[in-house]
Parts: sequence; C-alpha cells; structure tokens
Amino acid sequence: MNFPTPGFTGSTIDRADNLRLDQERISALLNHDDARLLRLEALDPLLGEDDRLAWQAMSELAEGAVPLFLGLDGESPLFAPLTRMAPGPTRGWGVFGLIGRMEGGDAALWATARSLIEWHNRHGYCGVCGSPTEIFRAGWARKCDGCGAEHFPRVDPVVIMLAEHDGKVLVGRGLNYPERRYSALAGFVEPGESIEEGVARELLEEAGVRVKSVRYVASQPWPFPASLMIACIAEAESAAVVIDRTELADLMWVDRGQVAAALAGAEDAPFQAPPPFAIANTLMTRWLHGLDMLAQGRGPA
Amino acid sequence: MNFPTPGFTGSTIDRADNLRLDQERISALLNHDDARLLRLEALDPLLGEDDRLAWQAMSELAEGAVPLFLGLDGESPLFAPLTRMAPGPTRGWGVFGLIGRMEGGDAALWATARSLIEWHNRHGYCGVCGSPTEIFRAGWARKCDGCGAEHFPRVDPVVIMLAEHDGKVLVGRGLNYPERRYSALAGFVEPGESIEEGVARELLEEAGVRVKSVRYVASQPWPFPASLMIACIAEAESAAVVIDRTELADLMWVDRGQVAAALAGAEDAPFQAPPPFAIANTLMTRWLHGLDMLAQGRGPA
Repeated sequence: MNFPTPGFTGSTIDRADNLRLDQERISALLNHDDARLLRLEALDPLLGEDDRLAWQAMSELAEGAVPLFLGLDGESPLFAPLTRMAPGPTRGWGVFGLIGRMEGGDAALWATARSLIEWHNRHGYCGVCGSPTEIFRAGWARKCDGCGAEHFPRVDPVVIMLAEHDGKVLVGRGLNYPERRYSALAGFVEPGESIEEGVARELLEEAGVRVKSVRYVASQPWPFPASLMIACIAEAESAAVVIDRTELADLMWVDRGQVAAALAGAEDAPFQAPPPFAIANTLMTRWLHGLDMLAQGRGPA
Repeated sequence: MNFPTPGFTGSTIDRADNLRLDQERISALLNHDDARLLRLEALDPLLGEDDRLAWQAMSELAEGAVPLFLGLDGESPLFAPLTRMAPGPTRGWGVFGLIGRMEGGDAALWATARSLIEWHNRHGYCGVCGSPTEIFRAGWARKCDGCGAEHFPRVDPVVIMLAEHDGKVLVGRGLNYPERRYSALAGFVEPGESIEEGVARELLEEAGVRVKSVRYVASQPWPFPASLMIACIAEAESAAVVIDRTELADLMWVDRGQVAAALAGAEDAPFQAPPPFAIANTLMTRWLHGLDMLAQGRGPA
C-alpha cells in the first residue's frame, strides 16, 4: 500500500517539539558533542559522495547565522543555519537534479529546513504592527518586539488532482513547463473551503470540468516554499473541457497505457511524467495500479 | 456517503476568482442593483428570523470599511465589510450557538468572510520589510507599498484524528473544554511533513500512541481564524497511553456503544460529544457507521 511513497516523506527524526521552549535544554543541545549543522548552498542541499545530506560541526555556524532546531536523530541534535537572504525567487531548476538523487528521509529533513529558513526571511517584521520580530521556540516561531504578537510558520495546503472519466484521467501542461511535461492540475485551498470543494473549484476554473465525487489519495510536503500537497482523484461528469489559457497551455485525457508509458519514460509516450519525488507522479502511479481505490490505511510515512 | 456533511461546507457561491484582478468588473459589481453586503456584529454572523445570514445594501457600508468580494450568488455579487479591529482574542463562545442554527452553505460563506477579515487585520504591514500593505485582488491579497511583496491569505492545515485499537477509539479532554466534553485530538501540520506524518507525530506527542497506518476521512474549513481541518483515523499499535499534561486533562478509549450514546446526547453517555458542525463529530459518526472504511468517493460538498 506504500508503493510508491510520496517524495519528501519518511524522515525518522524526532522533532521533539516539547523541547523548543526550553532554552536551557536547547542550549545544552547546541553544545552537545554530537550536535550537527546542516550544510546548505543558499537554500539548496549539499550532498556527499553517497548522495546523503552533508553535515558539519556547530562551530562552523557562520557569523550572524542563527541555528534552527530540527530535532533529534537518536541522541544527536540536528540544526539548520538561518541566514538573511535577499528577497526574490530562490529556486533554480538545478535543485530538482539534487532532489532526484536524495532518499526520502533526507529530502524531508532538508525540506523542513528550507521551508523554515524561507519563512523566517519573509517574516522579519510583524504583520500586525510593522515592528521587527525576534526568533523564538528554537526557530519554530517569531515574536513581535512591539505588540508581542506571535507568528508561526506558514504551511499552505494545495490540492492536486486527476479528474477521471471513462477510464481516462486529465493531465495539463502549465505555461512554463519543460517541453512535453504534463502533470496533475493543482491550486491553493482558499479560506472557507474543504479539500473536496477546493478540488471541485480548481477543476471547474482551470478545465471547465464538473465533479461528481472526490477521493483522497496521498499527501506530501513541498518546500517551494512551504506547501502541503493533497492529492485526490475526482470523478468528472463528462470529458468536455474548457482550458483556462491564463494558467494552462494544454489539457489532455490519457488512458492507462499512456500513463504507464509516461511513467516508464518510454520514448513514444504521449507526454513526459513529473519526477518521482512529485506527488503528481505518486498519484498517477497509484491510479494506474488501482491503489487509489483501496480503503486500507497507509503507513505514516 | 455524504452522511453527515462536514460543517462549514456546501456553499453554492461562485467565487469567480477570474474577476478578482479585473477592477472594472469589480467596480461594476459593487454598483450592481442586486449587490449585497454581509451583516456582521464584529466578526459574528447576524441571523434573520429564519436563521439565514442577514444582508444589506452596499450603501450601508460603514465609513472607512472596504468591501471584500465573496463571489456571485447567481447574478448577485456578494461582499463582506472589512473594518479595522483591535488585535486580541476575537471569538466568544456565544458564536457556537449561532453556528449551530445555520445551514452549512451559510456557515461556509460566513466562515470565508470571517477568515478573510481576520487575516487582513493581522497583515496591515509587510513581513518582509515592515512597510504598510494595501488590499488588492478584490480582497484576496495584499501588496506592500515598500518592497512590492504580495501576500495571500493564510490557511493553516490541522490534522484531527481518532486513534483506533481493538474496536475502540481514543478521545481526549482539552484543558479548557466545557464540562464532560471529549473530542478527537488535533494539531497543526508543520513544515516538512505529510498529513499522515502529522497524525502520527501528534498522537505520539499528546498521547504516547504509536501508529501503524493512517486513513483520511473528511475535511472542513474552520474559521478560528483560518484552519483547514483534515480528519483521519489511525490504527494504533497498542492501547497504552502517556498523557501530555500540558495539552490534555484526560484521555479515554471508548467503544461503539459509548460513542453512539455521546452522539445521541444520552444522559448516561460517558462524555459529551463535540457539536455537529465540528468535524470531530463527523469523524465519530463516520467511524460509528463504518463509513470511514469505504473507498468510494465523497461529493464535493
């Protein structure tokens, strides 16, 4: 039932959130002999020859950087370095090559660090009153110097879905996709709607597809910058589509053979599938094997 | 399969997000003869004698208030008034009495307005640079006057779950709950984890329960201030529990008869169930009737 496991899941770190407010314990962990600091290149992971995450001693923390507490790996406390970064787009396509080589648990740990670091960099000031904010909870919150408001990291829920009709599913080509790439449609969940309503709204907006029912399939964190991807399959009323040209270059209904060819990377596949660490790939794979129809539980990873 | 429908779902309004950036269209909608403005008392809904939401003409918009575009009800544009409010706790228990009388679609529409209004009030300044921000996208975003950063409404995903073991489920009593009230355990999804991992972590943190598998059941928006509640059932490895006394006053395993008695409001029930509009109630009801085990799709509402 865990085939395939969504990307960015499977970390075995204990986040130890009960320690975050305990400044004495956190200080002791910072000075622990086995404390390790994640190595990053800007926001990207640095990998060793074994494609594992690279770590260094706490003494390597750059001047002005603040350690964020990621959790405990057995007895070893793990930290990530928070440095100030210029605002603006922070993702190059190159990072996807690195992610493709990482194991899930490492990718999950790096994703946590990346999302936290980017959030801190966008929340140096208080939204309520405009005063500077200070880090607290060992990196898991900020507090306003002026009005005292507390701010917590954002996680933005996103629905990502395949509409299904007559044995085929609907895939779309975003305006800036790599050549031949098609994927599942997706969009942010808005205030005041459920997951199922978000799926129905996005399919209607982007593809003109009306939905009879929605079933949940899987989820993953997505660290660009901090989404929670919620993958679903929706039964469509018909195969008629109306493309939203402001979002999409193309829409295409594909059958099981075509999805299998795309997932296998076949040369004659009608499209290039999203990479294995993207939950759109998980979603297509589970649909192909009928795993999305099973009610049995999924493992926590 | 839609029994019971989660609270705060079922709105039939078209959010018409394609119009939000079209200032000319939005101006025309503001001046439309059928345009209606939601009546609120601070953030609470005002209900008519029929327990429906109360509306008024756009001319009733208070001085200094800004209209937020909720969407189209057929041809009628609907708006909610954004007024500046003092920071601080904004929810009285009284509002639950009102919500209990509202139909789902009305509650969903009010929830959207409430979440948006509270978000605007907490984001008058830019987190990136501290400058004032201005409303745009007809109420669905803010833009910084200083650095130009765009900010979008927060939706905070929360997992809420029943651990299941040996035919019983685990309910907990929060420190500030009404007398006899027990509910499903819950917690915010953190950056870098999936829904399933969030469920496993929260059960371990709050109840010392280890989880073998997690299955998704249902979702709802929860407007205090802007959560997306994601309800799951998790298979527990054993019935042993360790209570987190910083969060909970008590934990209790309950069987089907006890859950049925609680949901029916029986006098001899071992606990008082959460109200029908809370997804914890939906979760208990679906578990009781075995609906959580079915793989069939749920309607979009």
